[in-house]
Amino acid sequence: MESSNGNKRKRPWMGWLLFSVAMVVVFFMGLLASSIMERRAEALFAYTPQVELEEWEPRSEMWGENFPRQYQSYLLTSDTMFASKHNSNRADDLLARYPEFVVLWAGYAFSRDYNAGRGHYYAVEDVHNTLRTGAPMTPEDGPQPATCWTCKSPDVIRLMERDGVAGFYSQTMAYYGPEVVNYIGCIDCHNGATMNLRISRPALIEAYENMGKDITKATHQEMRSLVCAQCHVEYYFDQNKVEGANYLVFPWHKGLTAEDMEAYFDEIGFADWTHALSRAPMLKVQHPDYELYKYGIHAQRGVACADCHMPFRSEGGLKFSDHRMTSPLNNVANTCQVCHREEAANLIQTVYGMQDRILEIRRQLEKQLVRAHVEAKKAWNLGATEEQMHDVLQGIRQAQWRWDFVAASHGAAFHAPLESARIIGNGISIIQETRLQLARILASLGHNEPVPYPPIATKAEAQSYIGLDMDQLRQDKEVFLKTIVPKWIEEAVQREKGYRVTRL
Amino acid sequence: MESSNGNKRKRPWMGWLLFSVAMVVVFFMGLLASSIMERRAEALFAYTPQVELEEWEPRSEMWGENFPRQYQSYLLTSDTMFASKHNSNRADDLLARYPEFVVLWAGYAFSRDYNAGRGHYYAVEDVHNTLRTGAPMTPEDGPQPATCWTCKSPDVIRLMERDGVAGFYSQTMAYYGPEVVNYIGCIDCHNGATMNLRISRPALIEAYENMGKDITKATHQEMRSLVCAQCHVEYYFDQNKVEGANYLVFPWHKGLTAEDMEAYFDEIGFADWTHALSRAPMLKVQHPDYELYKYGIHAQRGVACADCHMPFRSEGGLKFSDHRMTSPLNNVANTCQVCHREEAANLIQTVYGMQDRILEIRRQLEKQLVRAHVEAKKAWNLGATEEQMHDVLQGIRQAQWRWDFVAASHGAAFHAPLESARIIGNGISIIQETRLQLARILASLGHNEPVPYPPIATKAEAQSYIGLDMDQLRQDKEVFLKTIVPKWIEEAVQREKGYRVTRL
Repeated sequence: MESSNGNKRKRPWMGWLLFSVAMVVVFFMGLLASSIMERRAEALFAYTPQVELEEWEPRSEMWGENFPRQYQSYLLTSDTMFASKHNSNRADDLLARYPEFVVLWAGYAFSRDYNAGRGHYYAVEDVHNTLRTGAPMTPEDGPQPATCWTCKSPDVIRLMERDGVAGFYSQTMAYYGPEVVNYIGCIDCHNGATMNLRISRPALIEAYENMGKDITKATHQEMRSLVCAQCHVEYYFDQNKVEGANYLVFPWHKGLTAEDMEAYFDEIGFADWTHALSRAPMLKVQHPDYELYKYGIHAQRGVACADCHMPFRSEGGLKFSDHRMTSPLNNVANTCQVCHREEAANLIQTVYGMQDRILEIRRQLEKQLVRAHVEAKKAWNLGATEEQMHDVLQGIRQAQWRWDFVAASHGAAFHAPLESARIIGNGISIIQETRLQLARILASLGHNEPVPYPPIATKAEAQSYIGLDMDQLRQDKEVFLKTIVPKWIEEAVQREKGYRVTRL
Repeated sequence: MESSNGNKRKRPWMGWLLFSVAMVVVFFMGLLASSIMERRAEALFAYTPQVELEEWEPRSEMWGENFPRQYQSYLLTSDTMFASKHNSNRADDLLARYPEFVVLWAGYAFSRDYNAGRGHYYAVEDVHNTLRTGAPMTPEDGPQPATCWTCKSPDVIRLMERDGVAGFYSQTMAYYGPEVVNYIGCIDCHNGATMNLRISRPALIEAYENMGKDITKATHQEMRSLVCAQCHVEYYFDQNKVEGANYLVFPWHKGLTAEDMEAYFDEIGFADWTHALSRAPMLKVQHPDYELYKYGIHAQRGVACADCHMPFRSEGGLKFSDHRMTSPLNNVANTCQVCHREEAANLIQTVYGMQDRILEIRRQLEKQLVRAHVEAKKAWNLGATEEQMHDVLQGIRQAQWRWDFVAASHGAAFHAPLESARIIGNGISIIQETRLQLARILASLGHNEPVPYPPIATKAEAQSYIGLDMDQLRQDKEVFLKTIVPKWIEEAVQREKGYRVTRL
């Protein structure tokens, strides 16, 4: 005691030093507290609704008043930012890059026009523009049913509410032309009143029911993938479910693998179309993105679509989910590197390595499929019988299903590289047996030599080879775009009056 | 001041309390320091050499005196502990599990006997036992050259020193029977004087030279894979390099991919054997473990063989590298989980998923190859010409090279799953074109129908199908094991006298 008191008396400056240090510390703590409070105020302001949203408000602009950061980043989906090594051009014409696709889809609308997917911003516009939707001049005209709109616009929710789900699926695409004008938006995934994630489309809910599962039991983290799985899946139009309707169904009844879905289609005897060359009963794969992702390591470790495609960002002291859905390769720092402590260049190189390998074997299979179709055509020309060709046509169907499963799925090579390779490998094996059968049929019909590879070096050559009149299709489309689409939009504007219509 | 002093005077027990707490803390710090010092002493003792080792000391027991933990864990390689899902039996007879292998290797010694690899402990014993080495009754007898011993024993270093590298490669295996008695040991990877990792075999050093690289520039982390790459690689016996010698060469001149090595073999016109059924000029892949690993994510992130196959352990306060080289799946906690924060069961499941997928497509290719061989045999039987068959035989060679590259590589499905799938996919594509050519040749020779799959449901059936007299081979081997091998060992014991011989 004595000594301690003695110290104080001997060094009076010590007390002043401690006092000064304490003052400085307190001053900076004050600054910090102030900074924290300012951010709080900002957050409080940012998350106080500016306008009141109805639960089913379809106009994303209205949501944007309350959630400007999410909305503004979502608007950036207008810049698609392709990031795949093999997908480096904007609005990439995949038929031009891979003319084989034209032959593989001969007799089906995809052989006319097939581009790399663009941002959500273009969802409605691209439906107008693609040659696949033709040129419907009246509301009754085809070729496409209203079902095609299902994933393209929040207006669909209103129309399904008004006309019933089956009623909606029973119309033509053109019938709803003046109604479907807003591109994919907030309401497609969110509840306007609570902002919670919500499944807005019946097909996914019904797909869960078909598997004996209840989607309302999904966790929030599962929902961060399931809202995407409303659309980024394999599906087909069932014409037997409700009379007169092209009912949207996910073929998940037996499971999510390529084999599971094929088994379902085989059981119900479904085919999307009959191939124009080989006459095989074909299946068109849509985009089994969610299904393939489920067999990849990221899904298996609990990573959701949104974790990589909608990473969290920070702006003005606020953390928010980036709604510019794009390839994580455009934003490695906020996606891959959140978990993987590795240089961005190395991470990207790894993904490119996956893409290269899958592309290499996928390309082999697509050329083998082209050969199988032209060999089958040759066999028919030489007088092959239905009975002779039965197994061949099944083999073509099965092998092309596997090819398309990987080719059509966005990001297959990354989402599930080995599962993709397995599927392609099976496809190559199946088409091998099929082409051997074809070789023997051809030999029995007097043709014991290779059937020449068709002249399909370019998209134009390939389309000409399968007999498409592209000039006519383009002309019709031009008339449609100049005369019909402007009327649809005008009608929407008149009907909605002050009620805004997105992107006119 | 006043108030503080007043406090102290009012609570004198406070000072004693602080004093007591300080005493307790100091006491425990003392205990901790003592514990640290004890461990230091132990480490000092543990790493003080008990015996002095010569730089090229071949007897692992001697090293074991200085490094008991490393040595004792190395002895555990006597328990192979198979961990692969598809490899769950000990000393697994792979010909029994996949009788197709017998047909694919018809005309080559592998069709007689091929087991899953066992631990290093069995390196010498397994050379004696396998039917592939036959029954050499004199030092001049074949069928195998001394080159087969190269990777099996530290005695090889002494023999190469004594007889020269080319001299060693010029003898028969039987010639060195009494000399090669110690199984793979410390000296094969370590310098006895410094304990540094060291390349002891010329083939890897020469392979680096052939690529224009200098292996002495390898980092320590690279050496932790390169010592393994002395043996766990693709290699062949070059008979043109030094006359009379079966010179061990790694075909790395153009690179390490399946295609790079194939291009090298094609360039030098090399074949391991002519297939007994198809007459194709075949390549036998050995075990391109290091090469495939280089194309996997672990190598690309700088993980060495030793990181997973020789993880660090702690014992008695000492950290040491576990020399029980086995599948990391036997020791997930010290291998995978060092980096991957995930339940062991999930990690194992992920590896099984890789193995399942690769096995699925590999099995397809091996059955297609069996068919190709029997189809080719049928074509020869029906009078096909060399000219007609030229491309077919090349195709069989190429496709089987790809199959074997994955089938023979230890852990291919894990080390580089997608590269393995790519190679298999290419193999399936190549054999497709080959079998189509065969179908047309067969049709032209009057056989326009499938060639039946051979009766190879079991190993015995398959061996009988390709005309092997297994009873004779087994009888000869028994005589050899009973009469020759004991003499070899006796001779070694006599020669070495006090100089110990491992495992008698």
